[in-house]
Amino acid sequence: MQQLKDRILRDGKNLGKGILKVDGFVNHQVDPTLMDACGREFARRFANLGATKILTAEISGIAPAVTTGIHLNLPVVYARKSKPITMPDQVYLTLAPSHTKGRMVELIVSPEYLSNGEKVLIIDDFLASGATILGLVRLAETAGSKIVGIGALIEKIFEGGRAALEPLGVPIESLACIKSLDDGKIEFLD
Amino acid sequence: MQQLKDRILRDGKNLGKGILKVDGFVNHQVDPTLMDACGREFARRFANLGATKILTAEISGIAPAVTTGIHLNLPVVYARKSKPITMPDQVYLTLAPSHTKGRMVELIVSPEYLSNGEKVLIIDDFLASGATILGLVRLAETAGSKIVGIGALIEKIFEGGRAALEPLGVPIESLACIKSLDDGKIEFLD
Repeated sequence: MQQLKDRILRDGKNLGKGILKVDGFVNHQVDPTLMDACGREFARRFANLGATKILTAEISGIAPAVTTGIHLNLPVVYARKSKPITMPDQVYLTLAPSHTKGRMVELIVSPEYLSNGEKVLIIDDFLASGATILGLVRLAETAGSKIVGIGALIEKIFEGGRAALEPLGVPIESLACIKSLDDGKIEFLD
Repeated sequence: MQQLKDRILRDGKNLGKGILKVDGFVNHQVDPTLMDACGREFARRFANLGATKILTAEISGIAPAVTTGIHLNLPVVYARKSKPITMPDQVYLTLAPSHTKGRMVELIVSPEYLSNGEKVLIIDDFLASGATILGLVRLAETAGSKIVGIGALIEKIFEGGRAALEPLGVPIESLACIKSLDDGKIEFLD
């Protein structure tokens, strides 16, 4: 998606060690107009999957998941990383490594909002190693839901997440595929 | 806003002790279509403030802030509760009590995205005691920004937050004002 790639080139920062900072429009400051355009694009690509629910992880997945939900008219569930007092005692919980926090984090979903037979579209900000998305897959499968598609704003293909997710046999769509962050550059896959 | 009040009556749960659970459409599962309607309503009410930025707190403020940002065409900054590795060492930080976590949490904003002279519209999910919103006010004022308005999806007027915010002298708008959660009921202010 050219609009997102252009923005990454303009405002993204290659911090080295494979870290791309997009805090100016995705992760801390959000550009709602860009997120809306990304949501519309995900909706177009995933229009025919029969998804019944969108699943993401707090925090940075929320904006693109919600805008995708607007355009697909689907509810969004965001897995929580800590259990609020409003959540029942019995939950679905898994652990996933957080790239930006440097430790394992919990991903928690209430059985109230993810149920048997649901067709789940996963949307997140990054597809890197795939570890967070695989955590969401485990939660959904534990709930008896079926994954029907996976979308990420930005894919870092050199981290191999796509290969980890391909056995699921569902469409995987990224709006900007980054081939390399070597030598301080940002190189997209054409 | 009648659409939000109707949804609270249909799907909200009064858990007692002043806690209203809206996890089915705001806090864990999000109804994007409803959030979009709320964003449109905030945009209508705050159209003439000359706001240059929307400020919210992760996590539950993100959805209504982003949809408001779509309709006002403004960037959204969400204060983080932990500092990711992509954030500079020098940040704006304050502490605020979290109602649902039962402890103090940090609210952190990078100086990159909140600057001197910015006109800030604060949007959050709840206005209860006002403590989180006052934390956002402190962050914005430390950055040299000016608060121009405050919006909350749901106000619990019996917690007194409005009185705590009124000295700021800016418009305070809630889309659903709850008068009482006594006796297991949900009573709106008319």
